[in-house]
Amino acid sequence: MKIVDLKVHSIAIADPPLRSSYGLHQPYALRTIIELVSDEKITGIAETHGSDAIAKGFEALKSRVIGADPFRLAGLLIDLVEGDVQGSSLDRSQTFHVPGENPLDMKQRLYSALEIAALDLCGRALKKPVCDLLGGRVRDEVPFSAYPFYKHAGGGGEGADARPDEYGEALAPEPLVRQVKRMISLNGFKDIKFKTGVLDPEVEIETVRQLHRAFPGLPIRMDPNCAWSVETSLKVGKALVQELGNGGYLEDPTAGMDGMAAVRRGLLDAGIDTPLGSNVAVTCFPDLEESVRKNAVQVVLCDVHYWGGLRAVQHLGKLCKTFGLGLSMHSNSHLGISVMAMAHAAAVTPHLTYACDTHYPWSDAKDEVVVGGKVKFVNGCVRISERPGLGVEIDPDQLARGRERYAKNPYRKRDDEAEMRKHVDPNWKRILPRW
Amino acid sequence: MKIVDLKVHSIAIADPPLRSSYGLHQPYALRTIIELVSDEKITGIAETHGSDAIAKGFEALKSRVIGADPFRLAGLLIDLVEGDVQGSSLDRSQTFHVPGENPLDMKQRLYSALEIAALDLCGRALKKPVCDLLGGRVRDEVPFSAYPFYKHAGGGGEGADARPDEYGEALAPEPLVRQVKRMISLNGFKDIKFKTGVLDPEVEIETVRQLHRAFPGLPIRMDPNCAWSVETSLKVGKALVQELGNGGYLEDPTAGMDGMAAVRRGLLDAGIDTPLGSNVAVTCFPDLEESVRKNAVQVVLCDVHYWGGLRAVQHLGKLCKTFGLGLSMHSNSHLGISVMAMAHAAAVTPHLTYACDTHYPWSDAKDEVVVGGKVKFVNGCVRISERPGLGVEIDPDQLARGRERYAKNPYRKRDDEAEMRKHVDPNWKRILPRW
Repeated sequence: MKIVDLKVHSIAIADPPLRSSYGLHQPYALRTIIELVSDEKITGIAETHGSDAIAKGFEALKSRVIGADPFRLAGLLIDLVEGDVQGSSLDRSQTFHVPGENPLDMKQRLYSALEIAALDLCGRALKKPVCDLLGGRVRDEVPFSAYPFYKHAGGGGEGADARPDEYGEALAPEPLVRQVKRMISLNGFKDIKFKTGVLDPEVEIETVRQLHRAFPGLPIRMDPNCAWSVETSLKVGKALVQELGNGGYLEDPTAGMDGMAAVRRGLLDAGIDTPLGSNVAVTCFPDLEESVRKNAVQVVLCDVHYWGGLRAVQHLGKLCKTFGLGLSMHSNSHLGISVMAMAHAAAVTPHLTYACDTHYPWSDAKDEVVVGGKVKFVNGCVRISERPGLGVEIDPDQLARGRERYAKNPYRKRDDEAEMRKHVDPNWKRILPRW
Repeated sequence: MKIVDLKVHSIAIADPPLRSSYGLHQPYALRTIIELVSDEKITGIAETHGSDAIAKGFEALKSRVIGADPFRLAGLLIDLVEGDVQGSSLDRSQTFHVPGENPLDMKQRLYSALEIAALDLCGRALKKPVCDLLGGRVRDEVPFSAYPFYKHAGGGGEGADARPDEYGEALAPEPLVRQVKRMISLNGFKDIKFKTGVLDPEVEIETVRQLHRAFPGLPIRMDPNCAWSVETSLKVGKALVQELGNGGYLEDPTAGMDGMAAVRRGLLDAGIDTPLGSNVAVTCFPDLEESVRKNAVQVVLCDVHYWGGLRAVQHLGKLCKTFGLGLSMHSNSHLGISVMAMAHAAAVTPHLTYACDTHYPWSDAKDEVVVGGKVKFVNGCVRISERPGLGVEIDPDQLARGRERYAKNPYRKRDDEAEMRKHVDPNWKRILPRW
């Protein structure tokens, strides 16, 4: 079997006005869908971040991909990930780059998508689910988390394409709790990952307390994406020891390895062992040595899109287990192909110690490119079926509509800061720490 | 596809009287060959350490293996390896257990063989080489090392089954160099892994110097299996800085993590950065955290038989790369199925930074169980072919003869110390450090 074509589809999907310390989500999130077509007319698919830059990256790899045996593609392209090195501290991290917009991990992102599409292709050819090409599932049901955001009114999209606002505005504790109630009632999530770093920390502390009261027993993690100083991080950690200590964690409270290490030391000195998670300070294998040496991060958030694919997540799982670290999974605005890639990665990674993050409830069914519409969460889980490959197929009409949205709209890279200036404050700048 | 049978064959193979700090090799080495048979009448094979104990271990797992989908077997049995924990220092290590005789890694050894046999079975079913089920080869040719030993006269086997002594006695520098010349002329090896810890260190230093003169430019590694004190290790390291510094390493000079760390510090203090390798202090994932923290070991020797299989070696490779460690591969007395499992592991592990060890030149063609006789080294390398699975088949007559040898001979576990008392010194005991 040989790969005879690599098709690259840049699409746009509506995205509600979600807030984070990076700023504000634009009305559309960009995704790239790739198709690897074999000489047997079988197609393997994957989904990753979108932008003109990544689409060009795939085009540039075509000559290496076309003609390759999909069973060997990951080995053939190994140079894209094996030479990975740590960038100079904050440059390589996601402190100043939103995920998918860091030029230093472009090769990892290209590789991940191609590895996943090749696995999907092989799985379809063999009529085997992807997880069973990776050693076999260790779990059939993959748990995901509710992922509440402070948000402005609006459901994403623009103009005639504006979408209904399913969740409404949430810029205070009470509407945020209502948002989570709806998200959990629809999906059955058993964990809450809460995007913070947006409002005054006192308001966010109050929000977590109200969440804890509304959902007793559900682990809560809090992710301010580096918005806080070490002092503020310690203040929040100490205030919420009961709420976050209940199986949750504090994710990237502050910027940089040294900042994270200082927060960890300060919490431990206060007798608080709530772990620190990260997908900002630690974003790649080369970050791990420093993180372990400094005890900066205790829970690594893997990502099938930028850590180097599904096998890389398996490697990372073993590494985390070996060094006594927890493993969680990061998410961006995405569609069902990414859901399934994440679920298969989780299914074959024994040491995944937390429910996966997902922005999927924020996506609109109108934008879904997989046949049959959005993948369902049942009791907060995605079930790994017996279907071959990732278990989903592309609906070509939906894909075409996604391409049209991309072509029509002016967004060509994610820029949460520009969006913030456009809609909230013309002088807004990302300041770290903000509090 | 379902597994319908697990066949377990305990065999014995002639082994020459090789010396190490553990003692003397017995006239027969014990191996176990397993066969996983599918409902489609396809058979997957693997080879591992031999003993009644491991054969019983496989029997005890039969109820979990039979009926399983071979694509899912590694996931189904993940509990055998995922709960692995560090033993209390020297107990878990191979300081006082020869490889294959440590009860604390029995589960890992069973798992490894079953994972490999399942991969071979899947590869045969799909007509794909094993390496291409693991992401695809990153190299087609896998380099192995010459593996000289001090040895007594004799070619292994006993009584009427005694084998010709191809290499002759070697208990001094000159015959040892002759041994390596022959081994290299027959196999084309480009590295030398030298088993030491047998003669007075001054004699071994002289042997390494003669090897270095005889094979200028060939990396030499020296493995005394913990026979030396920290002081002696430093003395040898300082004496041989030129010879071992040329791409070689010093393997397990002394016992224990703290001893290894002390040797490393002492060498670095003397301006010598010859790395320390280990398959004694570090034998499993749970050892790595302590080793990294103490900087005890800079080159980890993986082993497809006791680290948990081929995927575990891939995980270990990524971990070693991440923490700036080298990766090499350990060997025991073995046949061609193990050669090929090692070669496929090496083919899919980008960060394998040294040629693999192998005892294979010490085995007698008469004992080989693979069709066509012994696997060939060409320019010191095993070539990964396009053949499905591991690329070798069992010769049932040869396997039957191996079983007969096992049944006839009295050896039921490897005991190098008993053999030393029997043939060399009735009062011999393993003393660490001996020098």
